[in-house]
Amino acid sequence: MSKLKFKVVPGAIVAPKGFLTSGVFCDIKRLGTGKGSNKGPKRDLALIVSEVPASVAGMFTTNQICAAPVKVCAERVKRGVAQAVVINSGNANACTGKQGMKDARAMTALTAKQLHMTEEHVFVASTGRIGVTMPMEQVRAGIVAAERLLNREHTSADHAAEAIMTSDTRPKQIAIEFKLGGKTVLIGGMCKGAGMIQPGMSATGARPAALPQGLHATMLCFITTDAAIEAKALQACLREAVANSFNRITVDADMSTNDTVLVLANGLAGNAECGVRSAELKTFQAALQHVCLELAKMIVRDGEGVHRVVTVRVEGAKTIQDADAAARAVANSALVKTSWHGGDPNWGRIIDALGYSAATVVEDKVDIGYSAPGSRKILWSLKRGQPTKATFKQLCAAAAPKEFDLHIRLNLGQAAALMYAADLTEAYVDYNKGDVTDPTTLGG
Amino acid sequence: MSKLKFKVVPGAIVAPKGFLTSGVFCDIKRLGTGKGSNKGPKRDLALIVSEVPASVAGMFTTNQICAAPVKVCAERVKRGVAQAVVINSGNANACTGKQGMKDARAMTALTAKQLHMTEEHVFVASTGRIGVTMPMEQVRAGIVAAERLLNREHTSADHAAEAIMTSDTRPKQIAIEFKLGGKTVLIGGMCKGAGMIQPGMSATGARPAALPQGLHATMLCFITTDAAIEAKALQACLREAVANSFNRITVDADMSTNDTVLVLANGLAGNAECGVRSAELKTFQAALQHVCLELAKMIVRDGEGVHRVVTVRVEGAKTIQDADAAARAVANSALVKTSWHGGDPNWGRIIDALGYSAATVVEDKVDIGYSAPGSRKILWSLKRGQPTKATFKQLCAAAAPKEFDLHIRLNLGQAAALMYAADLTEAYVDYNKGDVTDPTTLGG
Repeated sequence: MSKLKFKVVPGAIVAPKGFLTSGVFCDIKRLGTGKGSNKGPKRDLALIVSEVPASVAGMFTTNQICAAPVKVCAERVKRGVAQAVVINSGNANACTGKQGMKDARAMTALTAKQLHMTEEHVFVASTGRIGVTMPMEQVRAGIVAAERLLNREHTSADHAAEAIMTSDTRPKQIAIEFKLGGKTVLIGGMCKGAGMIQPGMSATGARPAALPQGLHATMLCFITTDAAIEAKALQACLREAVANSFNRITVDADMSTNDTVLVLANGLAGNAECGVRSAELKTFQAALQHVCLELAKMIVRDGEGVHRVVTVRVEGAKTIQDADAAARAVANSALVKTSWHGGDPNWGRIIDALGYSAATVVEDKVDIGYSAPGSRKILWSLKRGQPTKATFKQLCAAAAPKEFDLHIRLNLGQAAALMYAADLTEAYVDYNKGDVTDPTTLGG
Repeated sequence: MSKLKFKVVPGAIVAPKGFLTSGVFCDIKRLGTGKGSNKGPKRDLALIVSEVPASVAGMFTTNQICAAPVKVCAERVKRGVAQAVVINSGNANACTGKQGMKDARAMTALTAKQLHMTEEHVFVASTGRIGVTMPMEQVRAGIVAAERLLNREHTSADHAAEAIMTSDTRPKQIAIEFKLGGKTVLIGGMCKGAGMIQPGMSATGARPAALPQGLHATMLCFITTDAAIEAKALQACLREAVANSFNRITVDADMSTNDTVLVLANGLAGNAECGVRSAELKTFQAALQHVCLELAKMIVRDGEGVHRVVTVRVEGAKTIQDADAAARAVANSALVKTSWHGGDPNWGRIIDALGYSAATVVEDKVDIGYSAPGSRKILWSLKRGQPTKATFKQLCAAAAPKEFDLHIRLNLGQAAALMYAADLTEAYVDYNKGDVTDPTTLGG
């Protein structure tokens, strides 16, 4: 990962030149009164608009059950041009058949009409309950209202970030500034996601030939930049950025039908356009990855019921596939996750999960240790398969902070992988069991 | 599965002729006082002894991190002869290195000495905390005490079934009677297991070349029979019985380091010995499978924190691997399991899990429905990917019972698979997070 430093600036998705946004309430989220529901009106529809047509890149869920808006975006992203995105929460428009496809397209057509732009340049994303057709009357009213409120004020970015939330407890936004080809360039982003989180996204939504083990949130992420980047170069940067950020997080190992990341690059910074062979591309890629990783970590920290965030760092695996499988097995083990919740440095459960993973693991080679986030000062609990002299009290202290790193060395090869993971708490269960007497509490 | 009927009889593992047992407290389980610990002395060591040497077969965890007693059994089972099993709870003797192997062998040597038999005819199994060396002084005293108490009384079987429990809330036992070659034959069994439950066992403990997705409890099961069966034929019967019972259950998708099933067949029923080509073998296999399946279901029903038991029945998959992957993805999805806990018939989460599974799934082909256990009267919530006219209230009623069947038809082929699964509850999380101020609550 790049060690470049980026200056954090306010404004999120409207920080870059030429982007406008708004977020409104149009009654897609029903006004539930029960546990876990949104008490009172909460914004549920957002628009993001570029003053000029922008290059676009996207990454989408590889779930075979894929929502209508994802299908529309995966098709349109191929042309490489976008100017607006319409997003709603409260309804995922997934498993809604032909009507769902009609509704997703109608959302883009309506937005295009309001904004006087080409329909194919409008993208769409949805999140919420699965299997319910979109309340199009409300959506239409929402788009009209949102178009009237479009502006470049930071409060509008806050409204948009709120409008895409479902079980999120807080909005997730960032913007950074850096130099590209002598020009000041900005990247802004917002995202949502709290449950159904273990994204495995590809550029087309098509599954890779060999499916990595455990590829599995609705997470939505929208990134704006005023950099001038060719669509193909933008897509290459995004693919790598997502591989090292959103595709490395897990809350509950469930991959959503709606996962979507979109980047619009409108070129208003005035740098010379970066193509796939541009020397500037590395800098842009590092900046984009920084934005994606910061947003991805916000998702894990705000995961449903999450109390502790653990970075699982596997080193010394035979192959990259082994490293990934080992990290995901530990990050998704119910027993490991509950022990994290209890602050219990239970290496027995960790080595058990390593042992049943698809990775090659040899008991008397395995090291397991703890450190502060990003620190190389590791307290080892296990060395070469044998308990160290670290005391139970010392290990408990290492597993007590809200965030820590778990270091696993398989000592069989050179491959490494990491996962940003979360504990499993009573609050997660309570939230997701919902309340059948109040269907507004039953998440997608 | 066989439709043969078997007469259930009392006596469990001492129901068959020539078997003796006992269960004692020898202080391996520490006398914890905290939440989830065993308050007061609980039996923690059991012996099972046959009056004569018996044919033996075994199935063992395929976890690469494999406990010392499993290694000892997997080695000895190859000779096909056993006469005794020594079992302890409270300590798994896993990840205990060379000392662990020494201790496991010492347990068998001690038992053999007390019983005046060949050490290689004594088998051993352990369950409990991982990574702590065996308290051999207590174990030695336990074996001596247990040997003195050996008898054929039903209360002794109860004591043995209690001595192998960890987080189990109740003992799990069964015995059946049937005719084999004109003779009356009995099979008795006992098992334990409540967490770390998704066994994937093979005859050697070696992993299959292609690892089925999600193979992942400590579960221990000991079966006695007075049938005369050649060891090879017994192993073939057990392999099939386990494939259709213990390897089809999941509580938390974690495969243990200690999973073990052992069958001892001492021949005292006086039937003509069944070989691999014997016409009687089918009857014996069906009976053995019945015992394994009844015991496996008891494990799911008594799973940690389990409120609801759901049989996930996948039909119409392209391949058996697809059927298995689809059933396991649904059975292990945190979101599906929490919705079961809430009595929420959330087919959106079910189809989401199907979509990210390794199975080929086509949205507009999928049927999802509910029935009473074993019933073909199915209430469909989804047909060909579209919601049916079943009302939310009707679907909630179908998902309300303590046990129900979930029917999934992929309509792409002929392959089928089922999983016996459990919901995910706050009680599971609470139990497994333990209490670091009271390490006796921290399970293996």
